Amino acid sequence: MAFSPLVDELVESLRCLPGVGQKTAQRMAFHLLEKGRGGGERLAGALSAAMTGVRRCDSCQNFSDTPICPICEKPERHTGTLCVVESPSDLLAIEQAGDYRGGYFVLMGHLSPIDGIGPEDIGIELLLRRVRDESVSELILATNPTVEGEATAHYIADRLDGTGVLTTRLAHGIPVGGELGYVDGFTLTHAFRGRKPLTD
Amino acid sequence: MAFSPLVDELVESLRCLPGVGQKTAQRMAFHLLEKGRGGGERLAGALSAAMTGVRRCDSCQNFSDTPICPICEKPERHTGTLCVVESPSDLLAIEQAGDYRGGYFVLMGHLSPIDGIGPEDIGIELLLRRVRDESVSELILATNPTVEGEATAHYIADRLDGTGVLTTRLAHGIPVGGELGYVDGFTLTHAFRGRKPLTD
Ligand SMILES: [Zn+2]
Ligand SMILES: [Zn+2]
Repeated sequence: MAFSPLVDELVESLRCLPGVGQKTAQRMAFHLLEKGRGGGERLAGALSAAMTGVRRCDSCQNFSDTPICPICEKPERHTGTLCVVESPSDLLAIEQAGDYRGGYFVLMGHLSPIDGIGPEDIGIELLLRRVRDESVSELILATNPTVEGEATAHYIADRLDGTGVLTTRLAHGIPVGGELGYVDGFTLTHAFRGRKPLTD
Repeated sequence: MAFSPLVDELVESLRCLPGVGQKTAQRMAFHLLEKGRGGGERLAGALSAAMTGVRRCDSCQNFSDTPICPICEKPERHTGTLCVVESPSDLLAIEQAGDYRGGYFVLMGHLSPIDGIGPEDIGIELLLRRVRDESVSELILATNPTVEGEATAHYIADRLDGTGVLTTRLAHGIPVGGELGYVDGFTLTHAFRGRKPLTD
């Protein structure tokens, strides 16, 4: 830009955000400079603190400010059930639903031989150690319903074969409140196969 | 979020960016933490430097790191012509087109009585002083073709009435490379009224 190296650098830096191209970065920079300097300074501080201070929980691998995250710290969450998810946002969605009260393990990815991502890269040994040491009785494999997510779930289930640990997958079906006409064919097939007798 | 106050604060802070809601802020925060810590730290520094260091040019009101911006500093841009725009992004678009070589004045807004924005809020006295002191001969009123932009242009033109300063507006018409069928009716009417004889 012809007029300010500081603005140039701000626009360039904003492009590290996902989904933010040149035009959007420029709009963001101008917005902050024109009417959001307080917000911009707050964001600078939050970024700096998070980039340095956020680590991975030694127990569940989720983001945490402390060696053991607040969820793993709670004795009442040690119910003998662990829910395995691919990412912190999956964990967050489950926490926000508010019904599940057990522990978690966050893979931060999935197995992907094509990208060179093997079991050790997503912490599967740590997971198996926890299952053993904490006498976990059920492992809910809540990886995504994608090829890689399914393969990752099956790999973990295979590794637990013969240990007596119950491995489960989340149910597929019609989303609650969803309209049948908008549900894709795969989901509909799953919903038919998983149909249940009507009781009251 | 149940697991990290630092992540919570980062997500909240990202929402000061225009067009960024809760979900997008979350996705941005996780992306930076997972694979963009270097970029996140660079952004923290750029934000902090820009929020403190970027000021307004004393001559044209555009963003600048110095009291007088690099464009106003250049003697060759003092051509006796000033282009009046509403925002730094308008100036940038004109600079990127690369053809205009005169000076600028950035209003950082437009007249808007309903929002209590009068001539003094957008620096019109400073503009008129420059026109007088720098013996400007033409003022290109490149405010937006909106009700407020037109009103602002007319207000400035009225204030210069009788001074002999030429005030001009940008031409309206078919965008270069645009398809006639996609051009709106107002633009088409303008393009018809502004038609020119074909010469080679
Ligand atoms: Zn944890
Ligand atoms: Zn200037």
